[in-house]
Amino acid sequence: MRIGIIGTGAVGGYYGALLVQNGFDVHFLLKSDFEHVRNNGLLVESKNGDFALDSVNAYCRSEDMPKCDVIIVALKTTHNDQLKSILPNTIKKNGIVVALQNGLGIEKDISEIVPSSTIIGGLCFLCSNKIGPGHIRHLDYGSIRLGQYRKDNPAAGITPELQKIADVFGKATIPIHLAENLGKARWEKLVWNMGFNGSTVILNATTDQIMKNKSSRAMVNEIMLEVIQGARVCGYEIEDNFAEIMLNATQQMVDYSPSMKLDYDAGRPLEIENIYWRPIAAAEKTGYDMQKSKILAYQLDFLNRVNG
Amino acid sequence: MRIGIIGTGAVGGYYGALLVQNGFDVHFLLKSDFEHVRNNGLLVESKNGDFALDSVNAYCRSEDMPKCDVIIVALKTTHNDQLKSILPNTIKKNGIVVALQNGLGIEKDISEIVPSSTIIGGLCFLCSNKIGPGHIRHLDYGSIRLGQYRKDNPAAGITPELQKIADVFGKATIPIHLAENLGKARWEKLVWNMGFNGSTVILNATTDQIMKNKSSRAMVNEIMLEVIQGARVCGYEIEDNFAEIMLNATQQMVDYSPSMKLDYDAGRPLEIENIYWRPIAAAEKTGYDMQKSKILAYQLDFLNRVNG
Repeated sequence: MRIGIIGTGAVGGYYGALLVQNGFDVHFLLKSDFEHVRNNGLLVESKNGDFALDSVNAYCRSEDMPKCDVIIVALKTTHNDQLKSILPNTIKKNGIVVALQNGLGIEKDISEIVPSSTIIGGLCFLCSNKIGPGHIRHLDYGSIRLGQYRKDNPAAGITPELQKIADVFGKATIPIHLAENLGKARWEKLVWNMGFNGSTVILNATTDQIMKNKSSRAMVNEIMLEVIQGARVCGYEIEDNFAEIMLNATQQMVDYSPSMKLDYDAGRPLEIENIYWRPIAAAEKTGYDMQKSKILAYQLDFLNRVNG
Repeated sequence: MRIGIIGTGAVGGYYGALLVQNGFDVHFLLKSDFEHVRNNGLLVESKNGDFALDSVNAYCRSEDMPKCDVIIVALKTTHNDQLKSILPNTIKKNGIVVALQNGLGIEKDISEIVPSSTIIGGLCFLCSNKIGPGHIRHLDYGSIRLGQYRKDNPAAGITPELQKIADVFGKATIPIHLAENLGKARWEKLVWNMGFNGSTVILNATTDQIMKNKSSRAMVNEIMLEVIQGARVCGYEIEDNFAEIMLNATQQMVDYSPSMKLDYDAGRPLEIENIYWRPIAAAEKTGYDMQKSKILAYQLDFLNRVNG
């Protein structure tokens, strides 16, 4: 089985390196880090043990890659326009695409590019950063929640393809949880992401600073409850106490800057569209106005523009 | 008639200096600028012509001031706890207090300190900054909207005391408009203040930058519409198109950092309580949840704490 990794950053670099380390045939598509990674391979600093891969299969053009059975999409969603050319070049007919990205609408966009592929969505519970070319620092966690995509997001259950991908990741020591309902899993992830990602950017703060201040904690809690209501009107029942569970989990977590904060600090574009505007639009379609999340999204749009 | 000015900053310094220049007997209570102003007087740079007052009546302790017929309160509301000692020390029995401050609840608080005084609220449409001790820079505008306070905020109409204060200010070349309904006038002012004051702090932007960006302009517009609805549930009918009028007026205005932004940049406490939380609480009492404004208020609380 040949595996392609599209986007070799904090997510794709980490999981791709684990797959290589565990004997899989992995091919990395890179952009800015191509020269460095071709010459030096990948370096992973991890709380589970550091390791270096001195040589990996690296490509800078998708047309140079061999066609793969499985393509793992780990780009920032802000670069998803590139998938239109990358995916048809890199995936075998009837291959499987695994999208390790945050937000809504990811799988639908991919299905329009490669309609005959099986599409699996993956939600990463991973604290890791790319701290240099081909250099990943893994801070905490690392599990992935995988779910099979079906048009219009009905619960797809545990399909053979989903089980197959779970087995691959499992052999690479990656903790896997399977979701019978990908749509619901995506909204559950949004509860945390819509609460914290934007807030850390707007308030220029880490998750820890936000948790320690009464007002910002209350704000994140209210945003989370709004997202839960958003999920509900879209047909996914999440209990209100899920917000409290997420806040408590964050309290236990290592002090962390989410990817959106790291993107902002590095002057990169922010993933506002998939993480904020698409869920807001999905809820709005049913008549529910996510007023609080919208304020964050407007603010992020402004900061994104000024930052760019 | 003896006039006392409590707070000799961008507002009290500017209007107080105009009153002195036009022959009134004015007494200034100062704190950090006391020494400088006693020795050097006040300097006003204004688009209407610069002028200097080489010597003014300056005090650093309210008990040293002569009792006044009119007290003009031009403190930041964040210092309003000081009024408890200042007002009884400085106002004649049956004197008039004119509160030139933003936000809700100002007059009620004052009425509890000096129950026998007439209380008048004033809303300043003034772009001015204090740029050094006793040094005011007047950038644009300068009119005051005055209204008489009555317990529980019924429309008080144009009272003799209100007319008296309007005459005093008028003689000092200050453009005056009279409001028959102070409560409504305060909410109308809040439409602009709740839209822009917090946003300039949170987005680290001037009014001009906010107006030029589609998302931030849309955000301010939505906040303004929420404030208008807040006014409505509190019994003050403001038309929805008032938001558009305010936005257009801002477009015409000189590029400006509102006082809250200047306070933030100078590391001073922010007037969040009177400008955000009190209106939010007033609306909440009637069952209306100002969700959008609340997000700004939470964010400001956080930034205020980190800044302090």
